[in-house]
Amino acid sequence: ILKLYIQTVTLIPGDGIGPEISTAVMKIFEAAKAPIQWEERNVTAIKGPGGRWMIPPEAKESMNKNKIGLKGPLKTPIAAGHPSMNLLLRKTFDLYANVRPCVSIEGYKTPYTDVDLVTIRENTEGEYSGIEHLIVDGVVQSIKLITEEASRRIAEYAFEYARNNQRTSVTAVHKANIMRMSDGLFLRKCREVAENYKDVKFTEMYLDTVCLNMVQDPSHFDVLVMPNLYGDILSDLCAGLIGGLGVTPSGNIGANGVAIFESVHGTAPDIAGKDLANPTALLLSAVMMLRHMGLHGYAKKIETACFDTIRDEKVLTKDLGGNAKCSEFTADICRRVQDMD
Amino acid sequence: ILKLYIQTVTLIPGDGIGPEISTAVMKIFEAAKAPIQWEERNVTAIKGPGGRWMIPPEAKESMNKNKIGLKGPLKTPIAAGHPSMNLLLRKTFDLYANVRPCVSIEGYKTPYTDVDLVTIRENTEGEYSGIEHLIVDGVVQSIKLITEEASRRIAEYAFEYARNNQRTSVTAVHKANIMRMSDGLFLRKCREVAENYKDVKFTEMYLDTVCLNMVQDPSHFDVLVMPNLYGDILSDLCAGLIGGLGVTPSGNIGANGVAIFESVHGTAPDIAGKDLANPTALLLSAVMMLRHMGLHGYAKKIETACFDTIRDEKVLTKDLGGNAKCSEFTADICRRVQDMD
Ligand SMILES: CC(C)[C@H](C(=O)O)[C@@H](O)C(=O)O
Ligand SMILES: CC(C)[C@H](C(=O)O)[C@@H](O)C(=O)O
Repeated sequence: ILKLYIQTVTLIPGDGIGPEISTAVMKIFEAAKAPIQWEERNVTAIKGPGGRWMIPPEAKESMNKNKIGLKGPLKTPIAAGHPSMNLLLRKTFDLYANVRPCVSIEGYKTPYTDVDLVTIRENTEGEYSGIEHLIVDGVVQSIKLITEEASRRIAEYAFEYARNNQRTSVTAVHKANIMRMSDGLFLRKCREVAENYKDVKFTEMYLDTVCLNMVQDPSHFDVLVMPNLYGDILSDLCAGLIGGLGVTPSGNIGANGVAIFESVHGTAPDIAGKDLANPTALLLSAVMMLRHMGLHGYAKKIETACFDTIRDEKVLTKDLGGNAKCSEFTADICRRVQDMD
Repeated sequence: ILKLYIQTVTLIPGDGIGPEISTAVMKIFEAAKAPIQWEERNVTAIKGPGGRWMIPPEAKESMNKNKIGLKGPLKTPIAAGHPSMNLLLRKTFDLYANVRPCVSIEGYKTPYTDVDLVTIRENTEGEYSGIEHLIVDGVVQSIKLITEEASRRIAEYAFEYARNNQRTSVTAVHKANIMRMSDGLFLRKCREVAENYKDVKFTEMYLDTVCLNMVQDPSHFDVLVMPNLYGDILSDLCAGLIGGLGVTPSGNIGANGVAIFESVHGTAPDIAGKDLANPTALLLSAVMMLRHMGLHGYAKKIETACFDTIRDEKVLTKDLGGNAKCSEFTADICRRVQDMD
């Protein structure tokens, strides 16, 4: 008998509907016999020595040990002065790449049927530097910080991703016509890295043009790489094209194999605890995680089951246009996963 | 006999297809007996004293005298070091508000049928400050500059616009969760100005959320006001929803009644001079101009004729899905305008 090596993943259920959809994912993973064991942790920031907000040490240790995390939605900010938990997690674990595959879901109707792209967002600098100054009364400056190192790192990630995921092109998204030095540096690094990936087509486009073309015909796009703020915008725009944050997976990739996969929707406090939430975004994020861990067979099985349930249109949660409870939707996916054996 | 007061408008035909589509607009204005006379000027920047790029004095004087301009596309940059003509015009005439009404065009099929919104973009500062520094090798900073004055001015413009154009709500678009000081200042000014316009509903939204919701259901939006870069992005995104830059009008509004209306598409050098261009964007910009000048009757007449020609689907230029030449499309609109008398 082949004994499968079981890997431990840090599970951050999160707030609001977080625990319900985390339970759904765990059930489906169990049905699929995925070789994962979960280590549940709470990441809500605490005040550390010197009054600095930090991730609780148990959560940090768990992540540092397991390297891989799955995270539900977090309510943020908790209190005035409390940092965005998303930003704090990105910073704590140096999660430099935010990756969001956006693929049209058969059976879930949106104005677009042929979306199949991935946004790769630089996650650590740019407009998110947090450096701002009051120059004189009524005059404020915010600093957008672009470094050679972070730009090269994200460009390399994008090209590696393209190569490893059978994608054929990478588009650098920028406004180097306006921010000549900062976006110019970003773009230059993308061009340099492109030289090492002759098997992947490289193009450059202005952010405004991308937005315009994206809503007219998203099918032309493949892998897109861009600075932090542009990624914030474009990843949400693209999520909108395929049905919103309720069905869009997301992964935050750091150095040395560390990665946190997460649903990027809100905590939906209005329906929390009522067994009404849609676990799709967290489930598809968990599927991304399986692929990241090299567990492609399990990923495919769970993903197929999830898409089959949606295409079938019989057991859907309310936001997907149905009447099913979260547990019923989950059970339908579990059944399909088991039927595949 | 009522003698109509004829106003002079500075016409900047521009490059590429610019002259053709300008001729089309002039013909349609003539057919409509619009009380406008044109003063044609070339704005291509020249090197002034001290080597600074500037608008040619004849063009500048014409604009300063007439206050109102209509502008076709300009090829830009002409040469390395040559400034963006669009930026130079905005700066020269302090055109602080870029206004783009995006309304679904009946008969021109896009994934959306119910777009009816206006983006109002702060046009003078923000990420377009042009201030950038090399901190150390490989580390670059760009400065986003937000001032109380420019923020208040654009907010006031947005609310005035809403009130004067029977619009019911203004949404401030921002990322004040990230750029707390700069976008925070912008947002605070919007809130303050909103206090003086209790007849207009005021809401605030994150840029990423706006992008996501916009592609899911644009019908919820009305007037949107935002800093420079966000406006660059969102105005193009919204243009995409209704059919692209070929059918989207744009106006740049300055202080003291100065305003330049323009088509924001490119010069299309591949089809220039071939009588194939679509003059709709420039024509609808000219319609915006008429409204700005208080000539609502002429505006309505020309706009109706243009939309009727498009809805009719018989005489359309290639980009609109037909086979007609620019001159034929223009003649069809002229005929309709004359039939209305
Ligand atoms: C919550 C917020 C800080 C965050 C961002 O702006 O990056 C969010 O929009 C995201 O994309 O994760
Ligand atoms: C050409 C470029 C400088 C310009 C901008 O970025 O503002 C354009 O995109 C626009 O929207 O007018």
